[in-house]
Amino acid sequence: MAQLSNLPETMTALRLGAEGFALDAAYPTPSLASRPGNAWAIVRVRLAGICATDLQLCAGYKGGYQGVLGHEFVGTVAAVDDAYAEWLGQRVVGEINIGCGACSLCRRGLGKHCRQRQSLGIIGLDGAFAEYLALPVANLHLVPDSVPDEAAVFAEPLAAALEILEQVHIGPDARVLVVGDGRLGQLIARVLALTGCDLTVLGRHESKLALLRAANAGRPLVSTADVVAQLADEPADVVVEATGRAEGFAIARRLVRPGGTLVLKSTFAGDATPVDLSGLVVDEVRVVGSRCGPFAPALRLLETGLVDVGPLISAEFPLPQAIEAIDRAGQRGVLKVLLRVPAG
Amino acid sequence: MAQLSNLPETMTALRLGAEGFALDAAYPTPSLASRPGNAWAIVRVRLAGICATDLQLCAGYKGGYQGVLGHEFVGTVAAVDDAYAEWLGQRVVGEINIGCGACSLCRRGLGKHCRQRQSLGIIGLDGAFAEYLALPVANLHLVPDSVPDEAAVFAEPLAAALEILEQVHIGPDARVLVVGDGRLGQLIARVLALTGCDLTVLGRHESKLALLRAANAGRPLVSTADVVAQLADEPADVVVEATGRAEGFAIARRLVRPGGTLVLKSTFAGDATPVDLSGLVVDEVRVVGSRCGPFAPALRLLETGLVDVGPLISAEFPLPQAIEAIDRAGQRGVLKVLLRVPAG
Repeated sequence: MAQLSNLPETMTALRLGAEGFALDAAYPTPSLASRPGNAWAIVRVRLAGICATDLQLCAGYKGGYQGVLGHEFVGTVAAVDDAYAEWLGQRVVGEINIGCGACSLCRRGLGKHCRQRQSLGIIGLDGAFAEYLALPVANLHLVPDSVPDEAAVFAEPLAAALEILEQVHIGPDARVLVVGDGRLGQLIARVLALTGCDLTVLGRHESKLALLRAANAGRPLVSTADVVAQLADEPADVVVEATGRAEGFAIARRLVRPGGTLVLKSTFAGDATPVDLSGLVVDEVRVVGSRCGPFAPALRLLETGLVDVGPLISAEFPLPQAIEAIDRAGQRGVLKVLLRVPAG
Repeated sequence: MAQLSNLPETMTALRLGAEGFALDAAYPTPSLASRPGNAWAIVRVRLAGICATDLQLCAGYKGGYQGVLGHEFVGTVAAVDDAYAEWLGQRVVGEINIGCGACSLCRRGLGKHCRQRQSLGIIGLDGAFAEYLALPVANLHLVPDSVPDEAAVFAEPLAAALEILEQVHIGPDARVLVVGDGRLGQLIARVLALTGCDLTVLGRHESKLALLRAANAGRPLVSTADVVAQLADEPADVVVEATGRAEGFAIARRLVRPGGTLVLKSTFAGDATPVDLSGLVVDEVRVVGSRCGPFAPALRLLETGLVDVGPLISAEFPLPQAIEAIDRAGQRGVLKVLLRVPAG
């Protein structure tokens, strides 16, 4: 095994347990010994990002997950099997899903949807709000030297935004609407604007819409009843729902043209939303669920600067203040909150 | 104006009114005089088909429509403006939607979705359960001589089945499931089987599944809890919901693979169905509403015999017995019921 130095036996981590989340200053450090095969790496986390899914998990969404939170990170490979020694010390970001590798979905190349999958900080695998995390080497991507940690930490959500373009063809003449000006909506708007499409973003916060204006990321509009009614006269070819709220879905459904595409980019609180399925049939609308996406183009867009994520950072906290950071991330008008792991 | 003979002032028609449906022996015959422009035709109906939408309209679905029912037909052009005299006496089928021609949807080639559209026998335009109907010449398609009336009358629902292949790419290696063995499910299965795909059809009626077996239209299975559980182990790339029932949707959703496509081909009774939108996001499923489709390929498949609709005809009634025909069409296990207009 190659490693930078001996790993400590315990570390600081933000842990979700049966009684909610808590900072644990003596959480067991992940080790290679407990991993199957030889193809895992231990990554020293440098910077991690808090996303809406983390807040939903903290609020009890889906209930099931217990362990270290966090799935957006940039870090340094701290230990790895000798067979992969070239990774040691490299700065990396990582894809979060690990399929079983054997089921029919994995065999069809759908490992990220494997029913037995682990997802970093979400399903069965301790996450990134800690000093160290473990991931398979196959999940890691080298971060180009010119991309600072503060940009690289956005690779995961930026990849999720790019997934829309993997799933739906958006040509330069398309009329496109993004509903939501939050963390994900901001990234989606920046990515979709690169297609040259006719892009509108509906939001509720003047400060967030101003960021879009500054980034030339579409036409930002405050979502009032009047504005929605006006947009309904010229419905969009593609609408992206990025609020995760039933009202957001209703607006998105209203503003997609017949034969158009409604992309669901956020999970929704609660179990079920009433949907007029007959309306989907009559209007021949397609509804596309969209989750994790490709890291390589995300890193390219960060490297070229075609997507500038700097203005999306609202605050940064050291890992030992993770509780305050989660609290801040949940406040109105706040975009990305980062957790920095102090040099150890 | 060119016409075969003087049209009678009144005719027999099955009319839906505020108090339900009734046979009217003295309903006004449609005339060219009352149509805008000069591009309409009066068609003498030869044979019409009853579909689930007709039964839903009779049962009060959407409430709004009042007028002559029926949108599946084959007929003979009985009167047309001199500019289109070559159509006179021709045997035709007809597309059912008429856009306003001026709105932004019509200008984008989406006339079938025009918000001011008329739809034969469904929205604002008297339909085919009558001796005569009126349609724009642009909506008409010549029926090849070798296609008998009893096949041509299926052009409209067969086109609707083909719409799936206009919207979704189904390659020959795809695993495909059709949920529903009724009128539309039968046509869908016949059309999808032509792709060479690995096709399964879930139904509830042994007699209908036997028709699929005889037509080599996929692997017919009785939809039991065991069968559904077994199919869930190898979920399909594409699932087509053709029952219009919430249980059918639930089964279809369960049996589509992550990243796969769920086609909604039937309208649903009631206003809204609870849908787990987060599940669609996490599984990256796409839900595609599908309605009317292309007539030209439907006529080609009927002409070549690649789709044989003969076995789908359960009964035929003369137009004056339309009430009995509607009743029959609603009975369990019955497929297509036809209405024949007596030679006049």
